[in-house]
Amino acid sequence: MKAAGLVVEYNPFHNGHQYHLDQSLASTKADIAIGVMSGNFLQRGEPAIVNKWARTKMALAAGVDLIVELPFVHAVQKAEYFAEAAILLLEELQCDWVCFGSEQGNIEPFLDTYTLLKENTDFTSEHAKSYMNDGHSYPKAMALAYAELKKTHSNMLTLDKPNNILGYHYVSAILKNKLSIKPVTIQRTGSGYHDADLPLNSIASATAIRKELTADGRLQDVARFLPRTSCEILHDYQEEMQVWHTWEMYWPYVKLKLLTTPPDTLKGIYEMKEGLENRLISAAQTSATFLDFMTKVKTKRYTWTRLQRLLTYLLMNITNNDIPKELKPTYIRVLGFSQKGREYMQSLKKEKGHLLLTRPAASNDPILAIEQRSANVHASVLPPEMWQHVQKREYQPPVMLP
Amino acid sequence: MKAAGLVVEYNPFHNGHQYHLDQSLASTKADIAIGVMSGNFLQRGEPAIVNKWARTKMALAAGVDLIVELPFVHAVQKAEYFAEAAILLLEELQCDWVCFGSEQGNIEPFLDTYTLLKENTDFTSEHAKSYMNDGHSYPKAMALAYAELKKTHSNMLTLDKPNNILGYHYVSAILKNKLSIKPVTIQRTGSGYHDADLPLNSIASATAIRKELTADGRLQDVARFLPRTSCEILHDYQEEMQVWHTWEMYWPYVKLKLLTTPPDTLKGIYEMKEGLENRLISAAQTSATFLDFMTKVKTKRYTWTRLQRLLTYLLMNITNNDIPKELKPTYIRVLGFSQKGREYMQSLKKEKGHLLLTRPAASNDPILAIEQRSANVHASVLPPEMWQHVQKREYQPPVMLP
Repeated sequence: MKAAGLVVEYNPFHNGHQYHLDQSLASTKADIAIGVMSGNFLQRGEPAIVNKWARTKMALAAGVDLIVELPFVHAVQKAEYFAEAAILLLEELQCDWVCFGSEQGNIEPFLDTYTLLKENTDFTSEHAKSYMNDGHSYPKAMALAYAELKKTHSNMLTLDKPNNILGYHYVSAILKNKLSIKPVTIQRTGSGYHDADLPLNSIASATAIRKELTADGRLQDVARFLPRTSCEILHDYQEEMQVWHTWEMYWPYVKLKLLTTPPDTLKGIYEMKEGLENRLISAAQTSATFLDFMTKVKTKRYTWTRLQRLLTYLLMNITNNDIPKELKPTYIRVLGFSQKGREYMQSLKKEKGHLLLTRPAASNDPILAIEQRSANVHASVLPPEMWQHVQKREYQPPVMLP
Repeated sequence: MKAAGLVVEYNPFHNGHQYHLDQSLASTKADIAIGVMSGNFLQRGEPAIVNKWARTKMALAAGVDLIVELPFVHAVQKAEYFAEAAILLLEELQCDWVCFGSEQGNIEPFLDTYTLLKENTDFTSEHAKSYMNDGHSYPKAMALAYAELKKTHSNMLTLDKPNNILGYHYVSAILKNKLSIKPVTIQRTGSGYHDADLPLNSIASATAIRKELTADGRLQDVARFLPRTSCEILHDYQEEMQVWHTWEMYWPYVKLKLLTTPPDTLKGIYEMKEGLENRLISAAQTSATFLDFMTKVKTKRYTWTRLQRLLTYLLMNITNNDIPKELKPTYIRVLGFSQKGREYMQSLKKEKGHLLLTRPAASNDPILAIEQRSANVHASVLPPEMWQHVQKREYQPPVMLP
């Protein structure tokens, strides 16, 4: 079986995801689609609106054959690490392709950009240095140096679009690690990644869908942007759990933690740098809501996303020691599969059997222990019995497409 | 002015407290009554059902002239420390008497017991040793040795009643420290301290009142056990804050903390001994509610009260370093006063001015910093804006009787 790999968050699975899935299968003629999915917390440092099991169900219902978990320690990271860890996992899964959406829509510029940047490291680093001497920040200086190089190489990517950037990191991970997986890009259609408003057609960004859902909680207002099965699964989740998970719900935990933990202990949290702990404590003292708090702590340097990731680490109590040096997966954990996905896993057993996690409860991989913690933290805003229920779910078998 | 000191929790202030207050003033003919009161968390390791400001208002409305805060680090402690710290504070306040309720009702046996125990340390320690050799636990062996001594001294106290024990600790603190404050005991009337059911007369235990309130939240069912002013203050609190504070509400914080903190860090919490952290973590993994959890961890050795105190320390992040070696107060903090109480404080200024805390916000006493933390933790179950409000309240002036 030929497999197309997708790097996904499905928060929640919507028509745009369906289009991407269908196009990925059509353009590669793959037999199955495999999704590497972030678990309960996402790359931008947010709790998933519904937990990973519900999101796995949506993916399977829409036609993904296999959902494998991207561990927390790799998922809640800046784009570069996130992308490389996901690609390495797809490679272990012996995917033939990785299919990613991009504004660009053509794979050549991704490959060319990697090669050109590699050939011109001196050029870019010198230009960057000079821009920094002019007073620009490091990322800004790098962007300007990149633009300088692009002047004479029109085939280079336009790197100011979020999916182009992510795609570039996928391609770069493949070429850097000399992997056998082949990159394929699908032209994005409909809404931009960050668009916050709902469009007139049937494709809206997940951001806009979440915004609408969490504002008034009415599923019917976003139904036209979702496959029917996603709608049903979201409906059942809400009925059972009584919530859509948002940062605002976790705010009491964050606030109490900031106001009861000594600054020296907070300093031990992963990515808590440059006295940030004092800035957070002082903002927590004067903020009633998460929005208040974020508005107070956010700066150009400490972006919203970076702060959200930091607060996720704080909630989860992630320290430097928890983050592995290697991005290569230490295990493969299946969250769900279709019959075809199951057969694919069976065939993978010969070569990758040692990596397949069949009994999570029996494992003592520290990365998996953090996954358990993540399930606990994500569930901490549920009614007590539901929290308890989700906690136990963590040790149960994958979701099977009925 | 002559002052009668009372050691109180007023959780909430009820008719039994009114009787004790009236009797204390009548029997001593004191000009004013001063209450040393636990703040937001109580001796038995419980969140106060309403915060210290509401409880101060109830006390003032009922006729107490001055309410002074017993700091968290002394209040949430076993009876012996709690009692001694409270007495030392009343002594600094230059109270002429401490008036405590007891089942005994007569002060002589308290004084005699102290003297006799002091004279017979060899006798009791030898007997205790022998009982321990027979396999009894230390507290049980001490109780048996005490009973042995009492056989030949009928004037000794019966120490199996909670208020006799507390009273004995007050008297012992006075005699041990050679204080000038005089102990007076008031015969208790009506319900026992721990009685959980509501009686037919107008005096019910605070335990029974809280149980009824938190079960269905209806103030009218307990109104006959409370002064009208207490009722009004409780009503306003509930209307504003929307809650009665119970352990069950803090349970999500406790659970999340237990499930995200490494055992080695938990070990640093004050009174976390003998691998208790692992016992707590494992119970938290399988408990939906606080009641479930407590039922699982409770043993003969780790009593309900002892565990509640430990969980309070956990919530508050109290470590050994936070607990001062000395029980003597480092400051006197007034929570509220009547006009008479205010005059008394003025007259105290000459001698005790250095101890009087007039601007909490400007102090850097570490014991007071813990008080701020305690206000924060207690308020963490309120709606966000109310939490914020209570947090600020901590730095504002005392309550004045209107």
